[in-house]
Amino acid sequence: MAAKRRASTKKKRVCILGAAGYGGSELLRLLLFHPAVEVAHITSRQHRGQPVWRVHPNLRNVSELAFEDLSIAEACEDTDLVFCALPQLSGMKAIRKLPTKTPVIDLSGDFRLRDPDVYRKYHGKSHAAPELLEEFAYGLPEFERDAVADARIIGVPGGFATAALLGLLPLARDGHLTGPIVLNGVVGSSEFGAEARLATHHPERDEAFRAYRMTDHPQIPEILQQLAAHGTTASEVTFVPYVAPMVRGLFMAVYARPLRRVTRDLARRAFEMAYVDKPFIRLLDGSPDCNVVCGSNFADISVDAQGSTIVVMVAIDNLVKGAAGQAVQAMNLRLGLDERTGLEFPGMRP
Amino acid sequence: MAAKRRASTKKKRVCILGAAGYGGSELLRLLLFHPAVEVAHITSRQHRGQPVWRVHPNLRNVSELAFEDLSIAEACEDTDLVFCALPQLSGMKAIRKLPTKTPVIDLSGDFRLRDPDVYRKYHGKSHAAPELLEEFAYGLPEFERDAVADARIIGVPGGFATAALLGLLPLARDGHLTGPIVLNGVVGSSEFGAEARLATHHPERDEAFRAYRMTDHPQIPEILQQLAAHGTTASEVTFVPYVAPMVRGLFMAVYARPLRRVTRDLARRAFEMAYVDKPFIRLLDGSPDCNVVCGSNFADISVDAQGSTIVVMVAIDNLVKGAAGQAVQAMNLRLGLDERTGLEFPGMRP
Amino acid sequence: MAAKRRASTKKKRVCILGAAGYGGSELLRLLLFHPAVEVAHITSRQHRGQPVWRVHPNLRNVSELAFEDLSIAEACEDTDLVFCALPQLSGMKAIRKLPTKTPVIDLSGDFRLRDPDVYRKYHGKSHAAPELLEEFAYGLPEFERDAVADARIIGVPGGFATAALLGLLPLARDGHLTGPIVLNGVVGSSEFGAEARLATHHPERDEAFRAYRMTDHPQIPEILQQLAAHGTTASEVTFVPYVAPMVRGLFMAVYARPLRRVTRDLARRAFEMAYVDKPFIRLLDGSPDCNVVCGSNFADISVDAQGSTIVVMVAIDNLVKGAAGQAVQAMNLRLGLDERTGLEFPGMRP
Amino acid sequence: MAAKRRASTKKKRVCILGAAGYGGSELLRLLLFHPAVEVAHITSRQHRGQPVWRVHPNLRNVSELAFEDLSIAEACEDTDLVFCALPQLSGMKAIRKLPTKTPVIDLSGDFRLRDPDVYRKYHGKSHAAPELLEEFAYGLPEFERDAVADARIIGVPGGFATAALLGLLPLARDGHLTGPIVLNGVVGSSEFGAEARLATHHPERDEAFRAYRMTDHPQIPEILQQLAAHGTTASEVTFVPYVAPMVRGLFMAVYARPLRRVTRDLARRAFEMAYVDKPFIRLLDGSPDCNVVCGSNFADISVDAQGSTIVVMVAIDNLVKGAAGQAVQAMNLRLGLDERTGLEFPGMRP
Repeated sequence: MAAKRRASTKKKRVCILGAAGYGGSELLRLLLFHPAVEVAHITSRQHRGQPVWRVHPNLRNVSELAFEDLSIAEACEDTDLVFCALPQLSGMKAIRKLPTKTPVIDLSGDFRLRDPDVYRKYHGKSHAAPELLEEFAYGLPEFERDAVADARIIGVPGGFATAALLGLLPLARDGHLTGPIVLNGVVGSSEFGAEARLATHHPERDEAFRAYRMTDHPQIPEILQQLAAHGTTASEVTFVPYVAPMVRGLFMAVYARPLRRVTRDLARRAFEMAYVDKPFIRLLDGSPDCNVVCGSNFADISVDAQGSTIVVMVAIDNLVKGAAGQAVQAMNLRLGLDERTGLEFPGMRP
Repeated sequence: MAAKRRASTKKKRVCILGAAGYGGSELLRLLLFHPAVEVAHITSRQHRGQPVWRVHPNLRNVSELAFEDLSIAEACEDTDLVFCALPQLSGMKAIRKLPTKTPVIDLSGDFRLRDPDVYRKYHGKSHAAPELLEEFAYGLPEFERDAVADARIIGVPGGFATAALLGLLPLARDGHLTGPIVLNGVVGSSEFGAEARLATHHPERDEAFRAYRMTDHPQIPEILQQLAAHGTTASEVTFVPYVAPMVRGLFMAVYARPLRRVTRDLARRAFEMAYVDKPFIRLLDGSPDCNVVCGSNFADISVDAQGSTIVVMVAIDNLVKGAAGQAVQAMNLRLGLDERTGLEFPGMRP
Repeated sequence: MAAKRRASTKKKRVCILGAAGYGGSELLRLLLFHPAVEVAHITSRQHRGQPVWRVHPNLRNVSELAFEDLSIAEACEDTDLVFCALPQLSGMKAIRKLPTKTPVIDLSGDFRLRDPDVYRKYHGKSHAAPELLEEFAYGLPEFERDAVADARIIGVPGGFATAALLGLLPLARDGHLTGPIVLNGVVGSSEFGAEARLATHHPERDEAFRAYRMTDHPQIPEILQQLAAHGTTASEVTFVPYVAPMVRGLFMAVYARPLRRVTRDLARRAFEMAYVDKPFIRLLDGSPDCNVVCGSNFADISVDAQGSTIVVMVAIDNLVKGAAGQAVQAMNLRLGLDERTGLEFPGMRP
Repeated sequence: MAAKRRASTKKKRVCILGAAGYGGSELLRLLLFHPAVEVAHITSRQHRGQPVWRVHPNLRNVSELAFEDLSIAEACEDTDLVFCALPQLSGMKAIRKLPTKTPVIDLSGDFRLRDPDVYRKYHGKSHAAPELLEEFAYGLPEFERDAVADARIIGVPGGFATAALLGLLPLARDGHLTGPIVLNGVVGSSEFGAEARLATHHPERDEAFRAYRMTDHPQIPEILQQLAAHGTTASEVTFVPYVAPMVRGLFMAVYARPLRRVTRDLARRAFEMAYVDKPFIRLLDGSPDCNVVCGSNFADISVDAQGSTIVVMVAIDNLVKGAAGQAVQAMNLRLGLDERTGLEFPGMRP
């Protein structure tokens, strides 16, 4: 394994800011085995000096990295690309300080909304770097490939927004989305991060199913913004997020009611066309299942109709296609690689 | 405990047809400790002669009942009321043979739809006792109290229909339900019965979230029928059922879009009025949670709004308020008892 | 339900100190439906003034109790018996202040070990009321019925000690326990209390199986003490506690190797004799299963042999027979009631 | 991905007999991304003609293989090595027919015991190819590297035997294993295969913890045989297998009581020496955890002592190091590759 980690002269060097959380954990799982990059630094103030396996015990004997407490300048000194997996509000502060030559892929959630007023409304704080909000690329490679390949800052979309947009954008033509839309999103406990809290206390989470935000989820304006960017103004989007008693997995049910009737076949064809050359999208006949995509970067999608309502279902792994995997997919594009590089493995069965 | 099971002369004698499944299991848990009834017989062809705890090991040392293989006549001979927990298609055949003096509460699902053509369309078989379909009471006590108290046959509603109707009927006035309705229903693995099958094979079910029927669920016409019975014609109801990796629990999210705007407060008041004297309905401010109602007969309900969409959430235990508990609640009314009798206990925490 | 909670003049009044944790939650579930007692007060400094259902949402509409912040004197003023469900180290301080007329049942763990030196060694603190350590009854009703019926202080045993002693004491005669003993104990996440912490963070606990204390568990001296109290000196007891990914349930595997060979039949007969009139002990032929006892006060026990090793398995619900149920069983004896009162219900299936 | 699957002229061609089960599923996950082999054929009578993703939906878009119903001769025609993942009793019949030039790695369990009488005693049938029982290599690479590298038939050990032997063999010197041994093994539901049955019915398995075989597990003689092969005769081995409510993971607690006292440090050093150059063994200070090894080929091991009892804990993924991963590790040795090839990835966190 030593050989594996010896720096190839051709490998790009990447750094992960805030690598102690689940986003960092998953980035490491993907990047340590990525053929074209090398992880040069991982940072964590809290865990500085500790070997990576103290925090991520799955990486014992797999990586000899240790957490460092680096300044932004130090982190960027000898790296070709930076992943920012800091918490929200911290992400934008770090990215403001990055040298402009260093491309950055942000998982903090601070680079998803373009309008600083909307950011403030939904996050309760002003954006620390509003001047960058017009500049970043929205990192959904299936629909933003060129922007991603070219951007200095790539904001990785929210997991719910990823699933919703994958389920909506193929319909965003010819008035298919002109009616009201209901989005019913369900996610596992890993979405809430690596810190213990009551909402993820095992005894009360094990058999729980509940909504966790009744209104005003910040991924609603994110979804609306991207629909608008693709020329569609939805008449009304209702979105409620729920938790189910699983660790990984995100399932989005999209109920769209076009003003004029769209058949199942017509809707289905729109998806087939949209995803014809998209390696991580799999169109199914039956329902997608979180269990089947877990651990992988695939998004499984079905398209059906009940009466005049189009029902689209999307299942992804919230930490892979909903976060770190999508980030690596974006990195591949940004580095000029095939977007599949290092991401082709399936999930486990069972 | 022997004393407990000695027949009080005042106790009503009940019989459970098909007591080896989960419906039977749950009826026994409730009825063995019900102060006003005594379980006289439990039937099962497959397990005849076996003590009840061979099939339901939780009842070891709790009940000395044994499964019998009785004819309908024998089962009814000395009983005051019969529960039919036979599988669908078997239920209607047994109930046809019941003496007309014996009230029956049916959990088989064969007495939910009044129209034999609709029954055939959704179940693929003709109803065996169409003459009884106009006669039965729809066993949703919160809305059918008088009919239930008086009926010879009480059809226990489907679990999804129970939750959907509890979330819809308070709005079924003043045009609040005139727009399209989306019903997103999620249920645990116990809903699929006591027999092993691939869909409930633990390794593939443990972290699964998926839809299990994309169209034409038989509880759709059941919901429409009961809305109509209460004077409402919904413009369109879309319903998809999903499984989550839990054993018990049913969560229904109702997204209703009245043609004219209804505020959250107005909707909320409609629920407060509808449920003012309903002991098993609990209106919450936050989200209901399956975990909180499990094991109990409570239905926890919240009412919110996003834009012009009313969002109602209902959580029940699919085997209690969604099946056996509702059946006992109906029995209480039918026997002239307080509907809470024997059903007041909470679920466990955690 | 109002009727239920109206004070019967004959009902004994009990108070629960520290009712906001899982011990308190489970005591409430049991005591609110106990026919011979009434819960007069529940205390919690943190939650004072709040209705009980704010903390225990399963009790909404079930109980109108509210948490109080009472002094010990106030709590005892009009109560016949006190349950102390405070955390360890707090329990002994509260109990020291109790009026000597008031019987108390302690779930804090401070009244299990009789030797203050052993207490200090295993808990790292001196006992605050060493003068009471000789006085308390060890609350394992199956073996200490008379002491429990008569004591002022009843210390509820640890869950592991309960299971281990139920599996060992029937063998503690005729030299059956003279060889080394291995105790392999497994427990669910509810054992660790109602406060969130990393060890019970759902994403990392959901599929976890691990030991959580490799040596020096404080229930080892507790087990040795009670074996000695019944005339047996074990040559060596090895005990390791493990967590499995379930909420409730405690499974103890006992491997005892008598110096002279004991057949399976002989060992089995010792259990039959020991438990002939013990209503909560169920001897099985196959393995006990946590799933089957969960929610109930039953202890399911099997006895087998492999070669010259006796293998005893014990399954209990850690919060019922391992804590609150056992406390209520002790209360029944202390109040002169049948020990089964209010505890006869089974667990749920499934 | 097409490129990936295009046959490299240097890649070895392998065939999987019986690839529709969980063993086959896991072999495919590993072999489809193994740099030195190509999967030439997968067989399944039941699923012949179907694309692999019909049975293993995680492999949709990942592999274009289809199940074939080949004779042994056909299966071997153009393959360099065969994996036999057929069910027990079928494995030995197939392997008998294999051409002697083709090396085979057997996961059926039919090549673990060398003595046909012991095989018959524990499996209830005579072995179909007793003449091969002396010939096969026992596929535990950490202790049988040379035999594995050289054998025509490699029998993959049982998962429990793997974990037990990894925890025992380092002690099998200097009389450290001369006293009685207790083995407490716990495994997840995936161990029971891909076919639905009551023991793995989700509603009854979700919170279950129980033993599933009280005596006479066939991996007991397998363990004794391998201890003997390494020069140790254990005085008595007691083994009980349990199920815990998880999908993957196997945890073995070893309690060994040497006749003369062995310190924790001495025992620990024996493990350090035994595993100094074994890439998949990780020695820990705290407890291993199934959660941490799941998905990977690592075996995490701790060594402790309580009094004169040595306590060794071993955690593996039952389908990887306990089956398919170990098989690939053996294949690597057999093909002259580094044993780590294609197996270095970690499990996921969380």
